[in-house]
Amino acid sequence: MIANQQVFQFVLHLADDSLILGHRLSEWCGHGPTIEQDIALTNLALDLVGQSRLYYQYAAEIEGKGRTEDDLAYLRDVIEFRNHLITELPRGDFAFTVLRQYLWCSFRTEFYQHLLTSSEIKLGELAAKCLKELQYHQRFSITWINRLGLGTKVSHEKMQTALDELWPYTFEFFQPTAAEEKLINASLIPDCRDIRKTWDQSCQSVLREASLVVPQEHWDFQGGKEGMHTEHLGYILAEMQFLQRTYPGLVW
Amino acid sequence: MIANQQVFQFVLHLADDSLILGHRLSEWCGHGPTIEQDIALTNLALDLVGQSRLYYQYAAEIEGKGRTEDDLAYLRDVIEFRNHLITELPRGDFAFTVLRQYLWCSFRTEFYQHLLTSSEIKLGELAAKCLKELQYHQRFSITWINRLGLGTKVSHEKMQTALDELWPYTFEFFQPTAAEEKLINASLIPDCRDIRKTWDQSCQSVLREASLVVPQEHWDFQGGKEGMHTEHLGYILAEMQFLQRTYPGLVW
Repeated sequence: MIANQQVFQFVLHLADDSLILGHRLSEWCGHGPTIEQDIALTNLALDLVGQSRLYYQYAAEIEGKGRTEDDLAYLRDVIEFRNHLITELPRGDFAFTVLRQYLWCSFRTEFYQHLLTSSEIKLGELAAKCLKELQYHQRFSITWINRLGLGTKVSHEKMQTALDELWPYTFEFFQPTAAEEKLINASLIPDCRDIRKTWDQSCQSVLREASLVVPQEHWDFQGGKEGMHTEHLGYILAEMQFLQRTYPGLVW
Repeated sequence: MIANQQVFQFVLHLADDSLILGHRLSEWCGHGPTIEQDIALTNLALDLVGQSRLYYQYAAEIEGKGRTEDDLAYLRDVIEFRNHLITELPRGDFAFTVLRQYLWCSFRTEFYQHLLTSSEIKLGELAAKCLKELQYHQRFSITWINRLGLGTKVSHEKMQTALDELWPYTFEFFQPTAAEEKLINASLIPDCRDIRKTWDQSCQSVLREASLVVPQEHWDFQGGKEGMHTEHLGYILAEMQFLQRTYPGLVW
């Protein structure tokens, strides 16, 4: 029997991933290289924060203890967050931003495709809602990977540097936690290990086309899904949660 | 008759100045150019945070409403902070850091010298305690202003850039608020306008010796002492107050 607690944690993981990556993207607002791209990145941020709300609401419902989406987003501390480490890394430059978006997004769309048929109907419904937006995000980021990867010497170098930095963080996408193993065994969620091959092939092909080279030697990072985070997450939360922490229960 | 409220606000101003500048200095911990300077900056930070405690404790006593030094440091929002704007500006590079330290510190020591004879005995006592440390801070920063101002072309340029940025923020040192005017008229605190000339002379002499030129054209900034701050203060408080906001009443 699957404890609600495990589904709750898994839904929180999906919510946290979107919220934290959305927050990082929102940092570009007013700082984009052109106004068109500025608003494009801000729109991606809005999509992701919107998606996180769907999952926080569902998580609150599963938990059934009266906590709201706001409580879950704004009143948990670092160790309770379940996002992949890649989402919390500092904003970086534009190359870093679009490449992270692509790496995360191509994993997430692949994962949601498989989640569509989950026996937990609600998980399939939410995945379907998110997929449409994420597929657009993916096209957006591939366009930029090509433009910058095949652009000038400088833009190519920036993309390659970003890839060298980001690649080790993709390892975590394919490492189920102990709690996820139980959900996988109950056929409630896809086994992330199974989608590694497909993801890897399409990813390598996109990167190769942009003449970027996946680094051969690197460390693999993980721990985010179990609450072990980089130092960066604390600073995000300090800033993002200030209002609710300072004025508890504040409403408009 | 001088309302306690005005003395309270003035003491808070002294406390906030030291806390916020101390916080900025503390950001160098682990990032100094050499280990000796790293620990030197961290020691200045400790001195200033220590001084802020003396003033917060005194402010809490004046207020007499049961708030503690921790409440005053960690549970007030931006608009209630009374520090000079210069103290909240981002850390900057090493040139910026030592020059800010000098500009602020040379004003503060001059001001405290005059405060020694305040008819509010406690204010004189606290000023005397702080002066000894601040005089050391001043010597420390003058040494670096000379070394960098007269050093290489690059170090000189960095110092001059820092001076151009910082100078407009010194204006605020010499603008009493309406509340301060009342304390001045009651001879409780020195008139900051009166010490401008002495400060200016010694300052210009130190800068000239380091072959630095005070910018002629600039905007003058003010507002910090009345709660009108730059965007930077909010980020400082978000980070600095996270613990007390998140775990109210937390003790070791």
